Amino acid sequence: MAPKGAKPGLQIVLLAGGSGTRFWPLSRTDHPKQLLPLRGKEPLLVETWKRVRRLAPAKDIWVIAPRSLSAKVRKALPGLGRSRLVVEPSPRDTAPAIALGCATLSRRDRDAVVAVFPTDHVVRDLDAFTRSVRSAVRAARTGALVCLGIRPDRPATGFGYLKCAERPRGTRPVGVERFVEKPGAASARRFVDSGRYLWNAGMFVWRVDRFLEELATRAPRVRRAVEGHLDGKAGAWGRAPKVSVDYAVMEKATRVEVVPLDAGWDDVGSWAAAARLREEARGKPGPHVLIDSEGSVVFGDRRLVALVDVPGVVVVDTDDALLVVPRERAERVREVVRELQRTKRKETL
Amino acid sequence: MAPKGAKPGLQIVLLAGGSGTRFWPLSRTDHPKQLLPLRGKEPLLVETWKRVRRLAPAKDIWVIAPRSLSAKVRKALPGLGRSRLVVEPSPRDTAPAIALGCATLSRRDRDAVVAVFPTDHVVRDLDAFTRSVRSAVRAARTGALVCLGIRPDRPATGFGYLKCAERPRGTRPVGVERFVEKPGAASARRFVDSGRYLWNAGMFVWRVDRFLEELATRAPRVRRAVEGHLDGKAGAWGRAPKVSVDYAVMEKATRVEVVPLDAGWDDVGSWAAAARLREEARGKPGPHVLIDSEGSVVFGDRRLVALVDVPGVVVVDTDDALLVVPRERAERVREVVRELQRTKRKETL
Repeated sequence: MAPKGAKPGLQIVLLAGGSGTRFWPLSRTDHPKQLLPLRGKEPLLVETWKRVRRLAPAKDIWVIAPRSLSAKVRKALPGLGRSRLVVEPSPRDTAPAIALGCATLSRRDRDAVVAVFPTDHVVRDLDAFTRSVRSAVRAARTGALVCLGIRPDRPATGFGYLKCAERPRGTRPVGVERFVEKPGAASARRFVDSGRYLWNAGMFVWRVDRFLEELATRAPRVRRAVEGHLDGKAGAWGRAPKVSVDYAVMEKATRVEVVPLDAGWDDVGSWAAAARLREEARGKPGPHVLIDSEGSVVFGDRRLVALVDVPGVVVVDTDDALLVVPRERAERVREVVRELQRTKRKETL
Repeated sequence: MAPKGAKPGLQIVLLAGGSGTRFWPLSRTDHPKQLLPLRGKEPLLVETWKRVRRLAPAKDIWVIAPRSLSAKVRKALPGLGRSRLVVEPSPRDTAPAIALGCATLSRRDRDAVVAVFPTDHVVRDLDAFTRSVRSAVRAARTGALVCLGIRPDRPATGFGYLKCAERPRGTRPVGVERFVEKPGAASARRFVDSGRYLWNAGMFVWRVDRFLEELATRAPRVRRAVEGHLDGKAGAWGRAPKVSVDYAVMEKATRVEVVPLDAGWDDVGSWAAAARLREEARGKPGPHVLIDSEGSVVFGDRRLVALVDVPGVVVVDTDDALLVVPRERAERVREVVRELQRTKRKETL
């Protein structure tokens, strides 16, 4: 509880839910991407924790996680306060998860400013990250709902875009004119060339009262479900619609702004991205023997992997499953997961 | 001991020594190719045993093996007689190994006819094999040293060739005019086109007295070393030169003949050959998931291997090492072994 009259400290909400199949066989149903050491030796969740610790003391960092991961999250983050782990009874997308975090905070401090972050991204430039968040916090104190927007370095079609009211510069907040869903290649090219679009990275800063006010108007079912859940009403959580915070709140809210984030951000969306990170982190192929296999990357150090004349592949070696796929086709790992689901080989999912 | 006057039965000598690096990581120093189930479920050694059991009872089958493999040979061949395993104190190439087998046999039966076989080859047509060996045995009884010669189906440069005195037909023995070392591509093409050349497959049939007589003349140091060893003289074996039976005896001997062997023979010289055999033996990729990976073959069934968009490779999966190499470059596995030797990673050799 902030002392009366003092400027309340920044609270952090980390979203540790979410699962995916893009990092099979290293990621599994009960061991998703944020728990993987995709860049260096530490899971992305731990890297995120250390990043936000520059912004706030441990007591002001909250983690929202599904029950299935709560033990693993506690283990990965020994500094996380006992009451700071907030369990989602079931995964219901980002709007309910973020609302749960904000409503929890609001019951302790109605004026809190909160910064919300995914835990499965990489940020290389920590100082730039801190600067952008601080700029966003200043805007948030005045009542804005602030996104952090990534300056695009390519016409990616895999991200949503934020159209800025004016060309964004430095870390100055600008108004968001429009949220754009994942565009086609031509639109993406146009967006990037215009200099007026930023990628929506799912990072937000706002006062909890402002967010909950918008939530009540724009997504009342989410708000009711979350408050009901916090009031101990059985089954309340299950009535929250599965919906993203962008769709449920941000696209409709008033006073939405964006602060550019130019900090070597990477959402690590595939094994191809993880391979790039691995190459950044260390030049050597670990214990492995790579002969005429330029651009090939091996994940997994428990066994010797020998590649001869196999360039540009990702090899992912785990105890019970192994993947080989060309880097530029890495997203096809989904087809393996589908095949395993189809043939009911749950043990490797 | 054959009853006096009776036609002595055929004795079989199997050569279970030899090690190589071409089947790394499945073959290791203490677990060479002949112990690998490269075609089906059984090691090539066991396939060989079953093949020669059609020619002779178990009591007439002898195995020459290095001390390091004798326990594994016994385990693989429970039908092998107690005294029928002859241990080579150290590996010294085929002339000493074969001489050891023949001298051992000779001390029991000077007139024995013996057929000598490697244990790391594949023969698909067992009836044709039996016919050729029987033809060779008939020629051997008259005093010839008989090779089994493979009719070439391609101008291979990896085998020695036997030049026949006349164009060989059926399973009729013909004289060998000349032994030719592994030829260049142009010579190999000429040999195959001529119809007068057969591959030297390292399979021989002869009377032991005839072989030992030639050995005494052509390679007296081998003969002395082997007899000394059998007489219990310490250090005798170590004085045998390391030399092949082709070079030491066959190229120089008189009355050398060859019987064509047209029986789907394969020396399984590389992972590429093993991949062909595996495809013959079963169409399915085992427990593995192969997507757009035509012509890729996975050896090892202990873990799920998923290949996506990786056609034409061999994957060899073992507990402590894994290999990925294009089928048509499979012989480059040697480079991995050299690298492991160079970096002193003995544990995976």
